[in-house]
Amino acid sequence: MLNMYEIAIPPLKRALSNLATILKIGEEHADAKKIEHAVFLNARLFPDMYPLIRQVQIATDMSKGAAARLAGLEVPKFEDNETSFADLHARIAKTIAFIDTINPAQLEGSESREVTITVRKVDLKFTGQDYLLKWANPNVYFHVTTAYNILRHNGVELGKPDFLGPRT
Amino acid sequence: MLNMYEIAIPPLKRALSNLATILKIGEEHADAKKIEHAVFLNARLFPDMYPLIRQVQIATDMSKGAAARLAGLEVPKFEDNETSFADLHARIAKTIAFIDTINPAQLEGSESREVTITVRKVDLKFTGQDYLLKWANPNVYFHVTTAYNILRHNGVELGKPDFLGPRT
Repeated sequence: MLNMYEIAIPPLKRALSNLATILKIGEEHADAKKIEHAVFLNARLFPDMYPLIRQVQIATDMSKGAAARLAGLEVPKFEDNETSFADLHARIAKTIAFIDTINPAQLEGSESREVTITVRKVDLKFTGQDYLLKWANPNVYFHVTTAYNILRHNGVELGKPDFLGPRT
Repeated sequence: MLNMYEIAIPPLKRALSNLATILKIGEEHADAKKIEHAVFLNARLFPDMYPLIRQVQIATDMSKGAAARLAGLEVPKFEDNETSFADLHARIAKTIAFIDTINPAQLEGSESREVTITVRKVDLKFTGQDYLLKWANPNVYFHVTTAYNILRHNGVELGKPDFLGPRT
């Protein structure tokens, strides 16, 4: 048995911190190859997919949303006005700092807490368990992986260990 | 509190079944546009990234590995000889069928079971909890997302709901 804090919080923080690593490697690659940062920041895998900046915004939104909703707190609102790698790092740091304010007691019993999210004006109701396992987790990994894939597709030398993060 | 079965097994099965949906949409798109299946099956996002077939092989390997190791069972070996969408669907179905043989009692206490995996000849030791949350889960989502991104990058009309799967 694991409690909801153990299941939700450390993996979210790991994913975000790995995302920061991925962005840092992307930025260094851009600098080394004299590629304008905006090229990577606005890169996408297909014209109607989101660019790198938006992938980071959604990954952080999903993470702060999960931590807040499972703890029964208001989700902090961010401006979505990032235009640089530094801005993205600040957003990730702000998200991790928020998650760090949550303690295990606040997530106690959250597996059965009712969570409602609004997606394109439709209310979706979940139990905390389903919200974490069927929504927040897959979404966070999706957007971190897509950020990785956008940079990888543009020649940045990333490897799976950058995505997985340190083992300890 | 959730038990290890609840945390591990239904999400793995969901990810695999969503991967099957993603492949099916890719195959239908190829047929509609008269694109040879091999073009999609061998597509990759960068020359030294794995192609679609290998993404599916790894996603299923990670899934059967997680279910088997957490249950203390031998990991079933598959041949890695898939060459068609039908082969990939058969592999996914075989993986889900194996996972379905596992029952909650077999995963009881697996959060503290020692799990050793060998990656490029190096033994990595985890607790069951770390193995699931730091290794198996992110890896499965990584490879399912990358399969999605490969097809999406090639113009297949996939949307996030295909990746997330039905809510119930």
